Amino acid sequence: MPPLHFAQRMDHVQPNAIGELLKFGADPELISFAGGYPDGTLFPTRQLNEVFQVAILERGAQSLQYTVSDGDPKLRNQLAARVTRLGTPCAVENLLILQGSQQGLDLVAKMLVDPGDIIVTESPTFLGALIAFNPCQPRYVGIAMDEHGMKTDELERQLKAGVRPKLLYTIPEFQNPSGVTMTAERRAHLLALAKTYDFTILEDTAYRELRYSGEAPPTLKSMDSEGRVIMLGSFSKILAPGLRLGWAVATAEVIGRLGLLKLAADTQCSTLNMAAASLFMERHDLDGHVQVLRAAYLRKKELMLDMVRRHFPQEVRCTDPDGGLFTWLTFPRGFDTARFLREQALGKAKVAFVPGAGFFPQQEEANHARFNFSGQPDEMIIKGMAALGALAKEQMAHP
Amino acid sequence: MPPLHFAQRMDHVQPNAIGELLKFGADPELISFAGGYPDGTLFPTRQLNEVFQVAILERGAQSLQYTVSDGDPKLRNQLAARVTRLGTPCAVENLLILQGSQQGLDLVAKMLVDPGDIIVTESPTFLGALIAFNPCQPRYVGIAMDEHGMKTDELERQLKAGVRPKLLYTIPEFQNPSGVTMTAERRAHLLALAKTYDFTILEDTAYRELRYSGEAPPTLKSMDSEGRVIMLGSFSKILAPGLRLGWAVATAEVIGRLGLLKLAADTQCSTLNMAAASLFMERHDLDGHVQVLRAAYLRKKELMLDMVRRHFPQEVRCTDPDGGLFTWLTFPRGFDTARFLREQALGKAKVAFVPGAGFFPQQEEANHARFNFSGQPDEMIIKGMAALGALAKEQMAHP
Repeated sequence: MPPLHFAQRMDHVQPNAIGELLKFGADPELISFAGGYPDGTLFPTRQLNEVFQVAILERGAQSLQYTVSDGDPKLRNQLAARVTRLGTPCAVENLLILQGSQQGLDLVAKMLVDPGDIIVTESPTFLGALIAFNPCQPRYVGIAMDEHGMKTDELERQLKAGVRPKLLYTIPEFQNPSGVTMTAERRAHLLALAKTYDFTILEDTAYRELRYSGEAPPTLKSMDSEGRVIMLGSFSKILAPGLRLGWAVATAEVIGRLGLLKLAADTQCSTLNMAAASLFMERHDLDGHVQVLRAAYLRKKELMLDMVRRHFPQEVRCTDPDGGLFTWLTFPRGFDTARFLREQALGKAKVAFVPGAGFFPQQEEANHARFNFSGQPDEMIIKGMAALGALAKEQMAHP
Repeated sequence: MPPLHFAQRMDHVQPNAIGELLKFGADPELISFAGGYPDGTLFPTRQLNEVFQVAILERGAQSLQYTVSDGDPKLRNQLAARVTRLGTPCAVENLLILQGSQQGLDLVAKMLVDPGDIIVTESPTFLGALIAFNPCQPRYVGIAMDEHGMKTDELERQLKAGVRPKLLYTIPEFQNPSGVTMTAERRAHLLALAKTYDFTILEDTAYRELRYSGEAPPTLKSMDSEGRVIMLGSFSKILAPGLRLGWAVATAEVIGRLGLLKLAADTQCSTLNMAAASLFMERHDLDGHVQVLRAAYLRKKELMLDMVRRHFPQEVRCTDPDGGLFTWLTFPRGFDTARFLREQALGKAKVAFVPGAGFFPQQEEANHARFNFSGQPDEMIIKGMAALGALAKEQMAHP
């Protein structure tokens, strides 16, 4: 075969952990805490079957056909109204429907980032965001977090030292992977810095509705008087990821540009899935379903944290998030979670998790791991975490 | 609002006709021959409802969940077997499932094209392909066609003169917009040129199965001994565009790279839609359904061509394609179809079509128009084309 001449951006598009990890999720032998999987037993299948049936049998000539690139007009209206009701004013021209919020990460980077431009992220940050941004060949600046979220003082220090970001990416609630939530004060500080230093904020709210305790700070978008914030949302965690539906909220100008990129990338989302989501919102109780998820995931979180405390070595710390799907484990320095996964966990405990190193945009730290608590049945959380804890104890006692 | 600092590629991403034209399709007042719409009354709704019901009610915990980025493994296997059976040898590792073949246009350009690289297309070519390629900031070289497809002699002349393409894009069957099919001889010539001048061929087979007359030449991919051809296929025209499912066929190495770009762009296609398509192929007769479409569209094509002959001015020529969804009308030089659409057709005849100018990658020609014959009921083809023909006669008599 002739050698292939790839575009330069392909140097930044390399095989990575997340693809492999999603494959772990498909292996029935394994107890996987790796993916960001919602609990499949809680999908509202009866209601979804009903709305798909209506969409196909009563409206199939429309809902199986092409539609406009910006998304089903009715669903756009419903989502804009819902986003507004949940605290972030949003008209229909401020909302674009996407192939999951992942597509928003891709399109926003395409819209704003030239090779060499700086993207600031939390450190650690969502691996999928780095994967989405990489083809635009950015440089990354990672800002550390504490229990109040991104350290905006540290960000300010870097900005004063001359760092000039084009884009700042944040998951302000129940951050992936850390589980941490940014306080209202930090949010206000971040917006002030964005104004002073003229950068765009990409706010990923994929987990925001899955709050189990505490009060929700306002979204960055709702505090944004300048049109500096692009907010992403998703049906994946509150309804079903298999539908591949998310949305972006921004100024009409930005939505127009993102819409052009969406048209270029894949024409449109599934007309049928949009029609079904619209019917679901019309005929069923999405808020009520989210309440069911909250109660279930709170219980699962408590169970997982309890298992960590009971079975893992005392030196292993974990975050206790107010919501979302993940807890972040920190092992003693020198402990390599990727090696532990590969050499111990997968083979001996038949357990998968995500080693933390890949979540760091700059200096990787090897001693963390992300655990998802929503995707596995209780008995698998108990079995998997007990086995893994025992292995970790053994490994740390006899490294 | 602060000024936005867009990436350079956004200079190449401008509002264009296709988005507006898809909106025409949604206006119930209008008879639209603009979109590439299949006949919505022929969607196999009963069978699709059945397979969605099975996917949701019997397998919902899997089919509403995340899955692997390369696509539902079972569907990949089924499609690879079907592609092979239809004449293009394909193993499962040679096939990637996409969000419609449009996503293949985006990902292949991303994989290969740096700013300034040359993409060769037929002239005219599919507007959506130009839209997909534009963010990669290519230069275009358009090669004219005759009734045997792209003039590969003209291509060879340009190659000998020093043109060095990175990528050549072709729709070898029932080309969009012209309806023309490339002969087997031209295909062989094109492959020889690709070998000599070392470029990749992107073969778009979206319409290939919709053949109404004549013998099918082999696919370029089936004639490709070197791994130079990337072939795209789609469920949009043979099952339903609202599912947003297509695929790429290429070497395992290329599929691996495209899979990384797919992961970055949107994680995966809809798990549910892939599961339903897989069940449809397992339980129902996709080939038989394609036969139904062939018979129906042949009849519609004959009806539309008959209306053109009977009602349009004699000087207006149209292609008579052996398949696909489009005929290409050529008006006398000096006639501007975009102006005719805007000032006459939309308002007076309530008819939409696509003016030809946007399909040209380089020098635009104003006197062509693309008409879709598959999407409208017979009575609308009759009514719309009669009204439009009368208007065209009036316009050409009194310009």
